Amino acid sequence: MIKVGVVGGTGYTGVELLRLLSHHPEVSLEAITSRTEAGMPVAEMFPSLRGHVDLRFATPDEARLERCDLVFFATPNGVAMKEARRLLDAGVRLIDLAADFRLADVDQWERWYGMTHAAPELLEEAVYGLPEVEREAIARARLVANPGCYPTAVQLGFLPLLEANAVARDGLVADCKSGVSGAGRKAEVHTLFAEAADNFKAYGVAGHRHLPEIRQGLQRIARGLPVELTFVPHLTPMIRGIHATLYARLTDPSLDVQALFAERYAGEPFVDVLPAGSHPETRSVRASNLCRIAVHRPQGGDVVVVLSVIDNLVKGAAGQAVQNMNLMFGFPETLGLDLVPVSP
Amino acid sequence: MIKVGVVGGTGYTGVELLRLLSHHPEVSLEAITSRTEAGMPVAEMFPSLRGHVDLRFATPDEARLERCDLVFFATPNGVAMKEARRLLDAGVRLIDLAADFRLADVDQWERWYGMTHAAPELLEEAVYGLPEVEREAIARARLVANPGCYPTAVQLGFLPLLEANAVARDGLVADCKSGVSGAGRKAEVHTLFAEAADNFKAYGVAGHRHLPEIRQGLQRIARGLPVELTFVPHLTPMIRGIHATLYARLTDPSLDVQALFAERYAGEPFVDVLPAGSHPETRSVRASNLCRIAVHRPQGGDVVVVLSVIDNLVKGAAGQAVQNMNLMFGFPETLGLDLVPVSP
Amino acid sequence: MIKVGVVGGTGYTGVELLRLLSHHPEVSLEAITSRTEAGMPVAEMFPSLRGHVDLRFATPDEARLERCDLVFFATPNGVAMKEARRLLDAGVRLIDLAADFRLADVDQWERWYGMTHAAPELLEEAVYGLPEVEREAIARARLVANPGCYPTAVQLGFLPLLEANAVARDGLVADCKSGVSGAGRKAEVHTLFAEAADNFKAYGVAGHRHLPEIRQGLQRIARGLPVELTFVPHLTPMIRGIHATLYARLTDPSLDVQALFAERYAGEPFVDVLPAGSHPETRSVRASNLCRIAVHRPQGGDVVVVLSVIDNLVKGAAGQAVQNMNLMFGFPETLGLDLVPVSP
Amino acid sequence: MIKVGVVGGTGYTGVELLRLLSHHPEVSLEAITSRTEAGMPVAEMFPSLRGHVDLRFATPDEARLERCDLVFFATPNGVAMKEARRLLDAGVRLIDLAADFRLADVDQWERWYGMTHAAPELLEEAVYGLPEVEREAIARARLVANPGCYPTAVQLGFLPLLEANAVARDGLVADCKSGVSGAGRKAEVHTLFAEAADNFKAYGVAGHRHLPEIRQGLQRIARGLPVELTFVPHLTPMIRGIHATLYARLTDPSLDVQALFAERYAGEPFVDVLPAGSHPETRSVRASNLCRIAVHRPQGGDVVVVLSVIDNLVKGAAGQAVQNMNLMFGFPETLGLDLVPVSP
Repeated sequence: MIKVGVVGGTGYTGVELLRLLSHHPEVSLEAITSRTEAGMPVAEMFPSLRGHVDLRFATPDEARLERCDLVFFATPNGVAMKEARRLLDAGVRLIDLAADFRLADVDQWERWYGMTHAAPELLEEAVYGLPEVEREAIARARLVANPGCYPTAVQLGFLPLLEANAVARDGLVADCKSGVSGAGRKAEVHTLFAEAADNFKAYGVAGHRHLPEIRQGLQRIARGLPVELTFVPHLTPMIRGIHATLYARLTDPSLDVQALFAERYAGEPFVDVLPAGSHPETRSVRASNLCRIAVHRPQGGDVVVVLSVIDNLVKGAAGQAVQNMNLMFGFPETLGLDLVPVSP
Repeated sequence: MIKVGVVGGTGYTGVELLRLLSHHPEVSLEAITSRTEAGMPVAEMFPSLRGHVDLRFATPDEARLERCDLVFFATPNGVAMKEARRLLDAGVRLIDLAADFRLADVDQWERWYGMTHAAPELLEEAVYGLPEVEREAIARARLVANPGCYPTAVQLGFLPLLEANAVARDGLVADCKSGVSGAGRKAEVHTLFAEAADNFKAYGVAGHRHLPEIRQGLQRIARGLPVELTFVPHLTPMIRGIHATLYARLTDPSLDVQALFAERYAGEPFVDVLPAGSHPETRSVRASNLCRIAVHRPQGGDVVVVLSVIDNLVKGAAGQAVQNMNLMFGFPETLGLDLVPVSP
Repeated sequence: MIKVGVVGGTGYTGVELLRLLSHHPEVSLEAITSRTEAGMPVAEMFPSLRGHVDLRFATPDEARLERCDLVFFATPNGVAMKEARRLLDAGVRLIDLAADFRLADVDQWERWYGMTHAAPELLEEAVYGLPEVEREAIARARLVANPGCYPTAVQLGFLPLLEANAVARDGLVADCKSGVSGAGRKAEVHTLFAEAADNFKAYGVAGHRHLPEIRQGLQRIARGLPVELTFVPHLTPMIRGIHATLYARLTDPSLDVQALFAERYAGEPFVDVLPAGSHPETRSVRASNLCRIAVHRPQGGDVVVVLSVIDNLVKGAAGQAVQNMNLMFGFPETLGLDLVPVSP
Repeated sequence: MIKVGVVGGTGYTGVELLRLLSHHPEVSLEAITSRTEAGMPVAEMFPSLRGHVDLRFATPDEARLERCDLVFFATPNGVAMKEARRLLDAGVRLIDLAADFRLADVDQWERWYGMTHAAPELLEEAVYGLPEVEREAIARARLVANPGCYPTAVQLGFLPLLEANAVARDGLVADCKSGVSGAGRKAEVHTLFAEAADNFKAYGVAGHRHLPEIRQGLQRIARGLPVELTFVPHLTPMIRGIHATLYARLTDPSLDVQALFAERYAGEPFVDVLPAGSHPETRSVRASNLCRIAVHRPQGGDVVVVLSVIDNLVKGAAGQAVQNMNLMFGFPETLGLDLVPVSP
């Protein structure tokens, strides 16, 4: 059993992490920090955890995270980068569920996130926690940057095509739809029920922070070749789920794209390639760590349409973080993650 | 490990039962029957089960249910009563998730359900599967009538008050609200998304089939004394969940109702009495087998208001059925049911 | 045409009022104030109003409300009471959509609203704006207290029974369900989409501010006789709508309650008594000023169940305010309010 | 006043048409037909229409549609084509809200709709009812084919770009999201609340019937030049609304696309071009006949992203049909359609 701490457990990513960790057979949950809620029982803020999590929120001082084997940061952007050095020096391994260590280029990071990076020297060491791409590096990592939700769905959808150099790398389109929990648990007008229900809209078309992360990931997958992507995120009136609809043009129209995807993901425990002709629904992965993918060539043309769905709070956040933890500590990759999706 | 069969696994109760049974450590799922879908892989109809349930729907003949230790009927009303005798004679134990064996009075059953009962001789033997009331009888039962969803929430809410003879037994009110999955997976206009979303209505005010079941249960709890209840069910635009708001008048205004509830349910693994002043939310039990209850006395008067929430598909159906199975076969009562609610 | 001003048009009540006033043939909309948004075009905050409302939010100074014939206050509680005297003295008539003038008893008001009343001398003059009860007084009023949403649905539902002295006045129950827009447009965690969707809960069971308003109204209807009411509000995952389920015990079981309701509301333009056996849906009044009511006597007993639905933003707020305006200025009562409900 | 009949008023398009026609100052609603519901008051099936529509459903024989000036067909595909000839010969003008007369090519129609066309000789005469393109022809038409919902949103979004020959005509992408009412009021499992709520999926990726209609429309707009389009429709958990996200590549990167759209739609009463940088929400057009459009060039590149929203039941069906009626009979184009969107 490893000792685990969670920094910032008051958001949706945090509560989902606690749901998963509370039943993980190799995890002893030692501390959950929250400056604002210190002293409050976690299950008072999140009644769904009554009987499953007995901890109280602690101040960072009380939490003594340095005695943990692993600390998750489920904090806003800009927090983990300030604490990482100290904890790493104490021998603690880290998984940041925010964006602090996702971009290799510090200038780009500072431009998109609008702050000075507090630990640029760690960017090179940090491993991007997408197991389907970086499994071996994650296993050895001290510091893992857990991917964003959109980037997970989009990268897994384009991956076989770009690895096989099978599509034109300019003109990629990622039209993505997210449930409202992706916007977090912060009180804001635009995510109120009466604003977001029975409504659909795009947002951030001019530029969303996940764009550079996706582009960086796709270019790595394409072995450094440039990739040109248009990424449009949308808000859809559901709680959980991301549906990425991806468009690319095949360079070799004779390619069997179904076989390409099936082979690439044959051994992956959390990527499920659906039979040809399928339309994955977000609820088919609800509350699970799965990414389900279907591939289409409408009217048999050379445009390939990939449909990729995840639960933004699980494979898009907390579940992928637990998957990374399993890899880092040599546990079976699926340990604690054998969740049957909840449907309906 | 016991051999388990499921008759009629194409509804919401069925798919939820499969979700739970597929991970139950003492269950070997042998067969799932569906006349209409025979031959189809279960996971093709319910993609959420891909990778978790490998069976195909079988015809009743193929299924050879008589070799099972236990068969669940997740069928419409009127099916189990026709098959029960044959299976019981073959030594199979049965749990019916429909209403065939819920009412002890055959005349009343036939009046409310509008058909002739095919096995009235089994009504006396059948045990009403509400573990908090009938735990010992369930353990010995060959045939368990799994309670309805509303009756579960209402009986657990009134139980401590009636057992303690603490309220006037006339004038009880149960104002209940159900998610739409409670109406089943049958194609009907009134449960279409565009009909039921962003909408709220009562239904069945003149008389709902769960009324006699609730009344029978409450009268048993009240040791046979008559109980007069007004029961109004409502449809609320959510998928899962029942919220029962119960009203009664205390006969002894000095009673500590919070203590009464806390003590009565102290040892119950699936009933959670919330601290005084709480308002349980249906999502706090989503996808779990819990019933959470709060008790209020508005303005300190002698009206007691009980708020009782369950997930209609779990504690209100499939989960309670698994709980009953655990009791019947001597497994730990919570085996396979230690589910953390999914929230948000 | 009358000159109309709106104070505080940035909430849901405000935008709904603008939707209605923008097409009212006798209204010239002169000014909308908002301290925080002064200078912003109204249609920029509410794109639904693009092309219909050309005004900008103005500061109270710029707005020069004293030149208006009528000013609506669509402000939080505690604002109108500070401005009322000055405007009344300038000859302006007022409709307050908040609670400042709803309770006749200043002590009670201060206890429930937690502030000192700034204009207690106006409480006696203020007319409670429920036209079905106070039509003549409203027509003469300078200052109208527009009723709350729950109080409107509940009073209209109990009214015929109490006027006819047909039910026991102790033991009334009002189990009410509201859409989330009833909580306003303020950024708060508990009304976020990811908190309120697919969820149902009671709130304020210990005591909701609408309770004294309802009680006062019911007692007036009962000609001053005491009324004892249990009121439990619930939050339901829809945008608009209130469904009140009301319970009372008939004193004369031979009463024809259907006829009682039909006769009482025969001439009312905005109260629609449905045929016996009906279950009104909230969507059947969506975006309209109607209250639809059905009356039941389950199993023919002496408990009467009244189902009363309104759109909380229309008959429960802005629409009723316009109805009051029509009465105050001698316009046809339905002018500008002949709205066909939007369904589905 | 003109005499108007409606064939098939039991679906969502029908009830929306009745909502609009019931208040149209130049329309006398003579008859609504439904074989299955003949004799039932319309307002019994659609309680939202109580007090607004007093007609009963009539059999086609009773309805005597030949005495009408105009008949709307709000029927499934394949009905209007059988009745059109007879009514046209009787001097009645027709608007078909289904697809019977939308495609000029009878072979293509029969392939996509899987039936033999009963009136191919009328295809040439039929005018495609998109006023922004065919206003003059509509005014003279006897037979108008009202456009589909997706085709309306997509054509209005691409129109200025294709008219101006400003984008590459191969590689267009239309990623569209529809509310569930777009699937109609037929009882089907996949549109049940418990299936469609809190869920998102694509459908018909292999080929949706609106694809040939869109392609035909875009090619006409492009003056007959070929257009290559990938069209992916999605189901989103809301009642009303379509959001089309359109992607194209500019041929002249120096083009001011905002000005192009603003100028093209300057005089259009129902197309609203939003300020640069906007993200139209579907609710901003809810229950209105508006199409709101925003144009983006992410990161200033040569990909243009158009966001186009309509209410599928209004501008995507019944409202556009009324707009066409206004044109056909010389009424002001906006008569009866000056609807303020209902938001929230």
